[in-house]
Amino acid sequence: MEATAPIRIGVAGVGTVGASLIRLIERHGNDLAVRSGRSIMVNGVSARDRGKDRGVDLSGMAWFDDPVALAGDPGSDIFVELIGGAGGPAREAVETAIMSGKHVVTANKALLADCGTELARKAEAAGVSLNFEAAAAGGIPIIKTLRETLAGNTVSRIYGILNGTCNYILTRMEKEKIGFEECLADAQRLGYAESDPSFDIGGQDAAHKLALLTAIAFGTEVDSTSLYVEGISSISPADFEAADELGYRIRLLGVACRTESGIEQRVHPTMIPRSSAIAHIDGVTNAVAVEADFVGQLILCGPGAGGEATASSVMSDIADIARGDRVGTFGRPASDLEPYRRAAMRAHEGGYYVRLSVFDRPGAFAAIAGRMAERGISLESIVQRHRAPRTTAPGHLVPVEPAPVIMITYDTAEAEIRAALDTIKSDGHIAETPQMIRIEQFD
Amino acid sequence: MEATAPIRIGVAGVGTVGASLIRLIERHGNDLAVRSGRSIMVNGVSARDRGKDRGVDLSGMAWFDDPVALAGDPGSDIFVELIGGAGGPAREAVETAIMSGKHVVTANKALLADCGTELARKAEAAGVSLNFEAAAAGGIPIIKTLRETLAGNTVSRIYGILNGTCNYILTRMEKEKIGFEECLADAQRLGYAESDPSFDIGGQDAAHKLALLTAIAFGTEVDSTSLYVEGISSISPADFEAADELGYRIRLLGVACRTESGIEQRVHPTMIPRSSAIAHIDGVTNAVAVEADFVGQLILCGPGAGGEATASSVMSDIADIARGDRVGTFGRPASDLEPYRRAAMRAHEGGYYVRLSVFDRPGAFAAIAGRMAERGISLESIVQRHRAPRTTAPGHLVPVEPAPVIMITYDTAEAEIRAALDTIKSDGHIAETPQMIRIEQFD
Repeated sequence: MEATAPIRIGVAGVGTVGASLIRLIERHGNDLAVRSGRSIMVNGVSARDRGKDRGVDLSGMAWFDDPVALAGDPGSDIFVELIGGAGGPAREAVETAIMSGKHVVTANKALLADCGTELARKAEAAGVSLNFEAAAAGGIPIIKTLRETLAGNTVSRIYGILNGTCNYILTRMEKEKIGFEECLADAQRLGYAESDPSFDIGGQDAAHKLALLTAIAFGTEVDSTSLYVEGISSISPADFEAADELGYRIRLLGVACRTESGIEQRVHPTMIPRSSAIAHIDGVTNAVAVEADFVGQLILCGPGAGGEATASSVMSDIADIARGDRVGTFGRPASDLEPYRRAAMRAHEGGYYVRLSVFDRPGAFAAIAGRMAERGISLESIVQRHRAPRTTAPGHLVPVEPAPVIMITYDTAEAEIRAALDTIKSDGHIAETPQMIRIEQFD
Repeated sequence: MEATAPIRIGVAGVGTVGASLIRLIERHGNDLAVRSGRSIMVNGVSARDRGKDRGVDLSGMAWFDDPVALAGDPGSDIFVELIGGAGGPAREAVETAIMSGKHVVTANKALLADCGTELARKAEAAGVSLNFEAAAAGGIPIIKTLRETLAGNTVSRIYGILNGTCNYILTRMEKEKIGFEECLADAQRLGYAESDPSFDIGGQDAAHKLALLTAIAFGTEVDSTSLYVEGISSISPADFEAADELGYRIRLLGVACRTESGIEQRVHPTMIPRSSAIAHIDGVTNAVAVEADFVGQLILCGPGAGGEATASSVMSDIADIARGDRVGTFGRPASDLEPYRRAAMRAHEGGYYVRLSVFDRPGAFAAIAGRMAERGISLESIVQRHRAPRTTAPGHLVPVEPAPVIMITYDTAEAEIRAALDTIKSDGHIAETPQMIRIEQFD
C-alpha cells in the first residue's frame, strides 16, 4: 500500500452499525481523507439479504454473500467485522482476513472475549492491526485511552457502567419507584432491551466488555470465564429506598482491580456513593473510570451502544490504520501478556449492604447481630423498622408481618458475609432470602 | 532513527511536571519500551538552577543552562518543552527544536494559544510532530480524542470545566454558602490558587485552553484573541441560593459552538442544569464534553492540573511519537485549517438568569417587566421576594431595603438582554448593577 493510495474497506454485516458506517464515510469522506492523508472507500460488503433496503447506496461496492469470501478478497485492505457472535462466520472471517494480511476492525465483544488473545497473536504474526474500539463501550474511546493515553501508567482499578439496558432499567426504577419487571417491559417496548434480555440483565454483556478492558488495563490474557457475574433482576424498590436514605445509588458496575492474590473481575449491582460523578450517569449512557498511578482518575462517559456512535468508534479504528498507527491489540505484544491470575471472589474485601426481612420476635435481631459478630463483621449502620402489631379484635394480636432490617457493614471479606448470611438464613429468623449488594468506594 | 533504537528525549524545565516525567520514565521505562517497541531515555535536561534538589536523579543526563541549546542539540530526538510562557525562551526553544528536525511535545497553552497555527505550519514543513495533550486539560486525553477518535465526526459544540481553581472556589461557595473572597483566600492557602490568581479567576487560563480545543474541534486556525471572557469574581452566595432553588449549579464554563454567523467561543460563569452529569464535577477536577454528529455526546473528566497527571499526558504524546504515529498538530494539515470566523457575542442566543436588587416601590416591578417586554424577552420564571417593612416606632414605617428579584428568560439574543438591563439600570429602580448569568442547556 502506498501512502497516497486510497485505503479500501470490506464491511461484513450491514445492519444498524454497518449502514451507519457507510453513511459516515459518505458524509465525512473528504474530511477523513484530509485528516488521515488517504482517502477511504468501501469496496466490498457482505450481508445476509442482498435485496433488503438499508437506506444506503451499496451499488458501487462488490457484494459477497459469504463474509469469509469478502475477508479473503484482495480488493480490500481492511476487513470490518460487524457480524457478531463468538464463533461461526464472524470468527472464520476474522481469521481469514488476518491470514490474508488484512487489518481487522471489529465491534465483536463476544468473539474477543472468547478468543481475543489467540486472535491478537495471529494478527501480530501476520503484521496486521486488530482494532476493537467499538467492542467495549460503543462510542466511548476507552480502548484508545487504555492502549495509548495511559501507556505511562500502572492501572490499579477500572470500573464502569457497561450496559445501557441495565442502567436504563435501574435509573427508571430509582426515579419512578417502580419494580424491575415493569421497567423491563417498558425498556423492551422502547427498544432499549432485547425481546430475550437475559444476556444484558444477567450481566454477561458487561462481563464480556470488562474482560477486554481488564486485558489492556492489566496487561493480561483475556479471560472472560473467570469473572464473577451477578445480574440486576433481584433489585427491588425497597433497595432503592434504602439506598436513597443511606446516600447511595444502585448501578450495575463492572469492576476489575489488582489485589494481592490476583486480579478481581466482577460484574454485579453495586451501591455507589451519590456524591460520586458516576452516580449521575443515567439512562442508557455508559461510563468507564480508570484509576492509575500517574493520571489519578479519568472518567469517560458517552453512548455505549447505537448504530451511529458505534460507527464513530469503528471509524476511529479505521482512521488509525489509514494514518499508519500500529498498536498492539491489547496495548502490547501478545507474547508479553501475562496469564490472567484470578483473585477468588470469596477473598473480595469491601462494604456490604444487607437487607433482611426479619420476623419480629423477641431476640431475632440480637441473634442476627450475633451471627455477624461471630464472623468478625462490624456494622457501620443499622436501620430497623418495627411494624406496629395489627389488632383484629380487642385483646387479640395477630402475628406481625416481617420487618425490614437494613445493615451496612464496614469492609469485610466476601466469604465472611456469605457465611454469616447462610447461618442467619438457617436460624429461621428471616422470611426471605437475604438481599446483599456490594458497596464500591471511590476517592 | 532505526525502529529499534532508543528514543532520546531532552526535557526543558524541570519543575513539578518535568520531575514527575523523569520519575514516570524511571518507574515505567521497561513497560513503555514493551508497549511502544522502543526504549525511551532522557538524554538531556535544562532548567534554571542546576543545584536545586528536585527529588530525581539527573546525573546520567546532559545538563544545559540554555533550553535553546538543548533544543538544538543533536543528542535527542524529541524536545519536551515545560518552560511555559507565550514568548521568551519557550518559543525560541520550540522553534529551534522544530528547525533541527526534532519532534516537540509541549504543555504550554499560552504559547500555542498565541502562535499555535504558525508553529503547526513550521512543524509540518519540517516533517515533525508537535503534540500538546498536556496543554488543554492536564491529564484528560481530550486532544487525542478530538484529533483521532472523532476523525469521522463533525463537532457542533464543545464545552468544559477547564480551570480547577475556579471550579474549586465555586464548589466551595456552593457547598459551604460562603463568599468569593473567603473561598479564594482558602484556595490560596491550600495551594489551589496562585498568589496572583487573576489569570485563573479572570477566565484567561480557560480561554487559552478553549482556543486550542476550538481549533481541533472545528478545523480552524487558533484564535485566542477573539474569545468572550468573563471571570467568576462577581458570583455571590445569593446567586448560588437562587440557582439551587431553580435547579441549576454555577460553574465557569468554556463553550465553543458553531452558529450561523461563525464560531462562538466564550468563557463565563454559567448556570447548568443540576440534572446534567457535568454539574457534578466538583473541586479541582476538570471535564470536557463534545457533541458531534455520529458519536452524540462524550464527556471526559479528570485532573486538569498537577505534576503527575500532566506528566502522564506528556508521556502519552511521547509514546505516540515513539510508536511512529503522526497526527497533524490540530488534527489535519495546517494548510487545511480555515480562518477563524468569530460569531459576535451580541448575537449569542440563550437563556439568561438575571438577579436584580429592586427598590420596593409601587410600579418598580411593572416597569422592569415592561423593559424586558420592549426587547421581546419572555420570562420563564420570576421570583420576587417582598421584604416586610420594618417599624421603628408605632405608626412610622422606614423605607424598606431593596428586594431581590430573580428572573429566568426564555432564549433571547445577548444584545437584547444587555439593552434591557441597561435601560432598567438607568430607570433608577435598582440598587446595584444587575447580575446576569448565561444558562447553558444540554440534551
